[in-house]
Amino acid sequence: MAEASAMGTSGEAMAAADGSSGPAGLSLGRGFSNYRGLVGGQEEAAPEAGLPAGLATEAGPIPTLPALGIGMDSCVIPLRHGGLSLVQTTDFFYPLVEDPYMMGRIACANVLSDLYAMGITECDNMLMLLSVSQSMSEEEREKITPLMIKGFRDAAEEGGTAVTGGQTVVNPWIIIGGVATVVCQPNEFIMPDSAVVGDVLVLTKPLGTQVAVNAHQWLDNPERWNKVKMVVSREEVELAYQEAMFNMATLNRIAAGLMHTFNAHAATDITGFGILGHSQNLAKQQRNEVSFVIHNLPIIAKMAAISKASGRFGLLQGTSAETSGGLLICLPREQAARFCSEIKSSKYGEGHQAWIVGIVEKGNRTARIIDKPRVIEVLPRGATATAFAPDSSNASSESSL
Amino acid sequence: MAEASAMGTSGEAMAAADGSSGPAGLSLGRGFSNYRGLVGGQEEAAPEAGLPAGLATEAGPIPTLPALGIGMDSCVIPLRHGGLSLVQTTDFFYPLVEDPYMMGRIACANVLSDLYAMGITECDNMLMLLSVSQSMSEEEREKITPLMIKGFRDAAEEGGTAVTGGQTVVNPWIIIGGVATVVCQPNEFIMPDSAVVGDVLVLTKPLGTQVAVNAHQWLDNPERWNKVKMVVSREEVELAYQEAMFNMATLNRIAAGLMHTFNAHAATDITGFGILGHSQNLAKQQRNEVSFVIHNLPIIAKMAAISKASGRFGLLQGTSAETSGGLLICLPREQAARFCSEIKSSKYGEGHQAWIVGIVEKGNRTARIIDKPRVIEVLPRGATATAFAPDSSNASSESSL
Repeated sequence: MAEASAMGTSGEAMAAADGSSGPAGLSLGRGFSNYRGLVGGQEEAAPEAGLPAGLATEAGPIPTLPALGIGMDSCVIPLRHGGLSLVQTTDFFYPLVEDPYMMGRIACANVLSDLYAMGITECDNMLMLLSVSQSMSEEEREKITPLMIKGFRDAAEEGGTAVTGGQTVVNPWIIIGGVATVVCQPNEFIMPDSAVVGDVLVLTKPLGTQVAVNAHQWLDNPERWNKVKMVVSREEVELAYQEAMFNMATLNRIAAGLMHTFNAHAATDITGFGILGHSQNLAKQQRNEVSFVIHNLPIIAKMAAISKASGRFGLLQGTSAETSGGLLICLPREQAARFCSEIKSSKYGEGHQAWIVGIVEKGNRTARIIDKPRVIEVLPRGATATAFAPDSSNASSESSL
Repeated sequence: MAEASAMGTSGEAMAAADGSSGPAGLSLGRGFSNYRGLVGGQEEAAPEAGLPAGLATEAGPIPTLPALGIGMDSCVIPLRHGGLSLVQTTDFFYPLVEDPYMMGRIACANVLSDLYAMGITECDNMLMLLSVSQSMSEEEREKITPLMIKGFRDAAEEGGTAVTGGQTVVNPWIIIGGVATVVCQPNEFIMPDSAVVGDVLVLTKPLGTQVAVNAHQWLDNPERWNKVKMVVSREEVELAYQEAMFNMATLNRIAAGLMHTFNAHAATDITGFGILGHSQNLAKQQRNEVSFVIHNLPIIAKMAAISKASGRFGLLQGTSAETSGGLLICLPREQAARFCSEIKSSKYGEGHQAWIVGIVEKGNRTARIIDKPRVIEVLPRGATATAFAPDSSNASSESSL
């Protein structure tokens, strides 16, 4: 399991065959196995290029225990043994921050987050998926790989689990990800399908990670930077990037625990489809005839302005991708404020936040953002309030401390 | 879970940053996140380039139930619930055959094989890991991807399980793999550590898959082909390739079931490190002071000759990589012949084979191949015996039918 499949990593076995010799009737005009040797451009591939729903539509037979297949954050498989369920998730992606250790932490936090969205606070096992870049020098590999692994392991440990296996290959691009698995009793997880009219939606991390990561890259790209420099300073971008990195590396584990304390009815985590996409996904899953309406957008300070100025992302439309974002949780109205105040309490350490962002109303299982949502400008921890000039008219500032 | 992490697949977020703006103290001279945009040569990377042991050395606290961490085929994690164990494995690699459907089957068979090596015949859940090549046209993607997925699913179904989730991204190279998970009672798996002196080693698929796949590619490479054409015909290579593909796509599930019937003491599956590497790995794991000695090498007909003529692979030395190879099983001497005859019985369908390949003797937990092993030339199913000219002096022919 831990070894690389040698025929996979041997360039020899994968060398171009140009397809002319494939078995009759099944060969492709162009060598299929050849697609391990080509690389092209696609610099601006849309998030959706990842074939989001390409894998499956069914989840096999469903006994009396609840089961969840493709589409939500984790799959839930009823087991053959004593009322237990297997809950499992996988995620892998490419580096998006410059710091390999933090990248490892983020990758692990992102995988675990799918369990946390089910209100699960434990993880029985973690596998790591890694590819190191073939274009790195030996020295670079030896410097970067252990840092990524350490970051991943440290986050796993913080999640109360250990990395016991995985697979590593060589690839043109670095890939990091994992597989989180837990076997649960029914009371350990909360199926994401029980929102009722009158519930309130709470979000546990500010939005804007993708904007912050990109803006940070633009610091070295004059053409891109020129388009946004009127609305943001270099220092603000640096601070926003640090804040985004910190948030992405923060586990949603505390929030998962509090879902039980405050009787959550459903939850999801905000990742590649943005807050709107994941809200819509969660709405579809509901048993009751409800819809979600989002009024407030907590956003890392200045990222809304960058999103507008650059004409990219759609952050205010809720479609900007997030990585390892917060949980979006449906809570009974009377519990939501208590949830938000509890998660900020010092007993959970620093850095946990939550905002009421919307409501659950009667509807046909859709989600939307109101026309002019209130933008809550979340100040980076490293910032003083005065360092950040006020932004657009519909924004209100709020320190994250 | 099923969605691609958008920041991962967006070239935008990953665009080169050239490292100059990383956080102080941790940034790298060259942009780390940049390693999702470069590609180099490394045509002849050794199997070991995949950082085989890079991931882990410990497996966390070990209660009374057996636990297995990195190093063997699957990890075994004692669970918090009622004497149950979580057994899990992951594998992913790059295409090595021209037929996308067969590639999907092979990838799934290869993942499941790690469970089968533990004598486990059930699988509770399968996740699929997939990357489609960014250099494919839309048309090629739409043609190839569903075929790979179908092959993978069909093999999963044959293994009695279903694919309930996974992750798909865009990458320079196609990647296919999966994660197999099962929750077991103690009698459902056989820990690979109980070989005793006098046991016999049985192998359930012939060796030579890497040689066959490469030789098949050489049919279109005159320089390479010239080096081996004296020992093999084009037709023999075609038949060997088909045989290899068929064998790689065959599940080791029947063998796993028979491990219980015939009281197996330990097993592993033969993949990237070749029969010698995996035998050594299994020997290290033994509780008794034993060593493994391999006398016989069942090899797809003519592949030994190609290995010799090409000066690559080390097939006769046991170091040639296999993909989705057979199980190597330690059986009590009196059971081994019965195992081999039972697995060929028609009640398990066609195509199952097994050979006695070695013995367990007193020793210091090592494995070796004797000086002049007997090569058993395994004829491809499509071949007639006369079509294959006799090979080297130490080879004996045996039809696989």
